[in-house]
Amino acid sequence: MTLILWTYDWVPQGPRGHVRDIRLRWACEETGLPYTIASIRFEDRTGPDHLARQPFAQVPALQDGEITLFESGACLLHLSDRSEHLMPRDGKARAETLEWLIAGLNSIEMVTVPWWFIGLSSPPENPLDGWLASRLSRLEAVLAGREWLAAGRFTVADLLMADILRVKKLRAALGPYPALAAYTTRVLDRPAFRKAYQDQLDHFAAADAARAN
Amino acid sequence: MTLILWTYDWVPQGPRGHVRDIRLRWACEETGLPYTIASIRFEDRTGPDHLARQPFAQVPALQDGEITLFESGACLLHLSDRSEHLMPRDGKARAETLEWLIAGLNSIEMVTVPWWFIGLSSPPENPLDGWLASRLSRLEAVLAGREWLAAGRFTVADLLMADILRVKKLRAALGPYPALAAYTTRVLDRPAFRKAYQDQLDHFAAADAARAN
Repeated sequence: MTLILWTYDWVPQGPRGHVRDIRLRWACEETGLPYTIASIRFEDRTGPDHLARQPFAQVPALQDGEITLFESGACLLHLSDRSEHLMPRDGKARAETLEWLIAGLNSIEMVTVPWWFIGLSSPPENPLDGWLASRLSRLEAVLAGREWLAAGRFTVADLLMADILRVKKLRAALGPYPALAAYTTRVLDRPAFRKAYQDQLDHFAAADAARAN
Repeated sequence: MTLILWTYDWVPQGPRGHVRDIRLRWACEETGLPYTIASIRFEDRTGPDHLARQPFAQVPALQDGEITLFESGACLLHLSDRSEHLMPRDGKARAETLEWLIAGLNSIEMVTVPWWFIGLSSPPENPLDGWLASRLSRLEAVLAGREWLAAGRFTVADLLMADILRVKKLRAALGPYPALAAYTTRVLDRPAFRKAYQDQLDHFAAADAARAN
């Protein structure tokens, strides 16, 4: 059964390359699971059809036969059930992958996204600077000692963490964290990420062309 | 096999009743899975032993035989694998539970925790007020139409979401969201929550007594 990945048909230039359907595209490219892209008109994102699919008016959503899921983290867990390449089946290695996936969502991104959001309005001081530094320092200590977060190999936890860390302003702030900087570069060098990234850019560029007609 | 829930031996008054081991205590009380509490000296939380268990120097951690997990969200997923009471096994109902658990961690708590954290320093304006209102409004619209988040019954997604919403400052701000306020009250009225809450208070109070000797 071909998976369907829902994203917007178009977004402004700013978020291109960072819309979270990229996490699902990347996971599908890693695993070889067949998928297709379906689009919601950006202007219709707060309409009843899309809210029924994604109650926070966001993307992505994933359709797998009868099952539809929202939240990129939940979709990644669902895809991990479909492919051992994303998450090992062995009890200990699976638990490691799970804890690091959730750490990405709830210990790192809980700080990085609000930090980035507050930074958009260029305040003289970002009230989350200290908290961010403390979390990144802890993660730096972990990644100074190993190549991958979990299970001794690439997993969905790395896919998520690298997608979190690659946000432009954050990546530019990784100077004091050489292991994090090297890790991010290493994970993003995977062909599956590069394809997913280019495909997302192409998807939105095609919408520019269609809208110009 | 008896589960082991790791928490601190003692914390200051402020966080008592809110230390995240409560999520695991609550889940165990709901399911009847046998568990015991193990303590890390609060002063030793940044020491090498605890960092090996929890690299962000936080609690809880969960030990299940050979497997040890950190991140409350990951521990809840692990416990959900052990008990259908927390997460249905049926594909669609399971997917709903999963997406709402992750929504709690990555769409709601990603805003509520930084909002609360920034509020601690009583700034004239909290830069996350608008984002918080937008997320709570969307969640209000969902819970205005149903009793539980997922699968038509209590699940681990409700356990987590109610634990997120019950944070004092946040709960006090739920006036404009009557469905969220009623939902939080409804979920917290469960005997398993009340026992977990009291047990956590007692655990830290016992440490006060021990330290006074």
